[in-house]
Amino acid sequence: MIYDGLLLQKIRQENPLVHNITNIVVANFSANGLLALGASPIMADSPEEMEDMVTIASSVVLNIGTLNPTTVEAMILAGKAANVKGVPVVLDPVGVGASQFRRRVVQTILQEVNVDVIRGNIGELATIADVEWQAKGVDAGVGSHSAEYIAELVATKHKCTVGMTGEIDIITDGNTVYKVKNGDPVMPLITGSGCLLSAVIGAFLGVESASTILSKVTTAIATYGVVGELAAEKTKLPGSFVVAFMDLLHDVTAEDIKPRLQIEEVVR
Amino acid sequence: MIYDGLLLQKIRQENPLVHNITNIVVANFSANGLLALGASPIMADSPEEMEDMVTIASSVVLNIGTLNPTTVEAMILAGKAANVKGVPVVLDPVGVGASQFRRRVVQTILQEVNVDVIRGNIGELATIADVEWQAKGVDAGVGSHSAEYIAELVATKHKCTVGMTGEIDIITDGNTVYKVKNGDPVMPLITGSGCLLSAVIGAFLGVESASTILSKVTTAIATYGVVGELAAEKTKLPGSFVVAFMDLLHDVTAEDIKPRLQIEEVVR
Amino acid sequence: MIYDGLLLQKIRQENPLVHNITNIVVANFSANGLLALGASPIMADSPEEMEDMVTIASSVVLNIGTLNPTTVEAMILAGKAANVKGVPVVLDPVGVGASQFRRRVVQTILQEVNVDVIRGNIGELATIADVEWQAKGVDAGVGSHSAEYIAELVATKHKCTVGMTGEIDIITDGNTVYKVKNGDPVMPLITGSGCLLSAVIGAFLGVESASTILSKVTTAIATYGVVGELAAEKTKLPGSFVVAFMDLLHDVTAEDIKPRLQIEEVVR
Repeated sequence: MIYDGLLLQKIRQENPLVHNITNIVVANFSANGLLALGASPIMADSPEEMEDMVTIASSVVLNIGTLNPTTVEAMILAGKAANVKGVPVVLDPVGVGASQFRRRVVQTILQEVNVDVIRGNIGELATIADVEWQAKGVDAGVGSHSAEYIAELVATKHKCTVGMTGEIDIITDGNTVYKVKNGDPVMPLITGSGCLLSAVIGAFLGVESASTILSKVTTAIATYGVVGELAAEKTKLPGSFVVAFMDLLHDVTAEDIKPRLQIEEVVR
Repeated sequence: MIYDGLLLQKIRQENPLVHNITNIVVANFSANGLLALGASPIMADSPEEMEDMVTIASSVVLNIGTLNPTTVEAMILAGKAANVKGVPVVLDPVGVGASQFRRRVVQTILQEVNVDVIRGNIGELATIADVEWQAKGVDAGVGSHSAEYIAELVATKHKCTVGMTGEIDIITDGNTVYKVKNGDPVMPLITGSGCLLSAVIGAFLGVESASTILSKVTTAIATYGVVGELAAEKTKLPGSFVVAFMDLLHDVTAEDIKPRLQIEEVVR
Repeated sequence: MIYDGLLLQKIRQENPLVHNITNIVVANFSANGLLALGASPIMADSPEEMEDMVTIASSVVLNIGTLNPTTVEAMILAGKAANVKGVPVVLDPVGVGASQFRRRVVQTILQEVNVDVIRGNIGELATIADVEWQAKGVDAGVGSHSAEYIAELVATKHKCTVGMTGEIDIITDGNTVYKVKNGDPVMPLITGSGCLLSAVIGAFLGVESASTILSKVTTAIATYGVVGELAAEKTKLPGSFVVAFMDLLHDVTAEDIKPRLQIEEVVR
């Protein structure tokens, strides 16, 4: 089964250290989300200390939300150090389609660093795949290629697992494709709901387990979606939703999640 | 009527992209507030991508809360690009009276960029007007000139609309003056309540409408004040207030707002 | 009595301006916590304006959570200016054991600036004391020296008051040692709960009072711990806890606190 119910428990036992180089908008939300889940955040972003931080990290998450030349340098140093030490790397290419600068930076990261997982929306992944897609700002847009095609293109080209999130999430390593239909429409109303998911994927990658990366990413995305559903049953209003979501990230168990899972393998 | 009840609905239909160059304290709160209201935030602050971001933005908000030479460069690039493209610009001169550095930066911005709206408290606007006023840190202080005089001086000198917020808000384009008495004393207890208002003004400026900037700014400030009143009816405690305020930004309608409006034109 | 019940009231009367040079993770939480308590935050971090900010500040708090060379420069400028003007300085050496860069920076700060209070966990203080201790990331770890020994070593070496926080808090000026057992295990689940405490200590140092720094720091730590207990009586879930904690920081009185105090002097 692609969903691995033990991973959540392992996060709470092992408290993996997730090293986030992230943006000023979501730094607090991401750190609190990781702590609520059971992981431990490191939020350092200065090039001077990237190698030291990676030494103690269980995973590294690179998020370009409010990138600048210094944090980009830090991301590349952290990513390369993680590759050397075998620490998994997640890339969140926030709004990559919105500027030439972001496109260049993501290209450079993907050239310099072996990224294990790219987590983005369809607009961001279409930019990375270099296929046409109409993006609106840093949010997803509308286009003509199928979502699956774009996700597989990116996974194959960059030899990584792709977590494409949207109304239906698509997770693929380039060979196998899973769809996850969990989640709630209130989630995109919360700034950083995608960024925190990337950090949560980092937590799932950071535990000891024989599961594949594909299984870990699918489990992380489905878990996150179910937590969103459970919180949305309490409230659909964004201020209250954030509170309920944090509470449930802490409280949810695999037993709560399993009956709600909507994961299916795409058969071709 | 100066209050334009259609603007809120237009924000929710058009989801204007508000490009914020802002500070590390309020970035999350501002982005969440814009999303709750129905707008879309861009929070980039690196000079490398300012022109690209302005290309897709419906409005630009410059906030000097935790300014540094790099973000100042970004603000000026974004402001100039916005002027070229006819995108409205809001300036929030946070704590401008607190340091020489802030005074110089605000002077430079006002020389280099045509700012459409300046939103600040009386202490900040007195500094820009170069009239005496006792400021306390980044908060408002006490002085001798009338608030209206200061607001009009700034509006006239910088050919813009001024939104001076405080117990009574004063909005003027240098010709007409409106007072808004909506709001609640708990609001200044929330860090960034002024900064988010500046971003919200950006959302109101970012929709298609024949209304004047004076009408849009007055509508934004009155809407924000009424949301504060409605939230304060639920709770006066700051942690709970933030949650209620976000919920209500999302939920409030022009019909909720209209019966509570306390707007009056100053007749002279 | 080491607990000074008047200090909280003074914070609410005097609204001391606490100048924080802090990190992108906790800036919002720290500013909101200070406002909730009754103090006023300044959150500037650019070297260009440090001296001006210190001129109006009641205390200065240096936090290295997401340090970089520019903020370090700002911290040293602010610290030196505070020393010249007699403004108290608090240092929060977040995760100092996690990188060579942090160790060098903290050494430099302690050489260049007379720090009045160091607030950290046992792992951080062991690094400063240069005694062995196993740290895990930026969080506390496990070691062999007694916590009291480490706290006194730092206090004596750096001629300051040390607030070592953990399950049991230890406060010492190198001569007298107090233990505080207030607090709740949910508190470390909130990112920045230590950072905000350092800022709160800044607020307690920033009021006019004949109390010793040892008394002010002990009062601040005990107050914070009791607020944590009161909030934890409402909820143990992290999202709801943050809301309750902010509400109670605003609402709590010395009369609520006194019956719950668990402070004892260590007799030797």
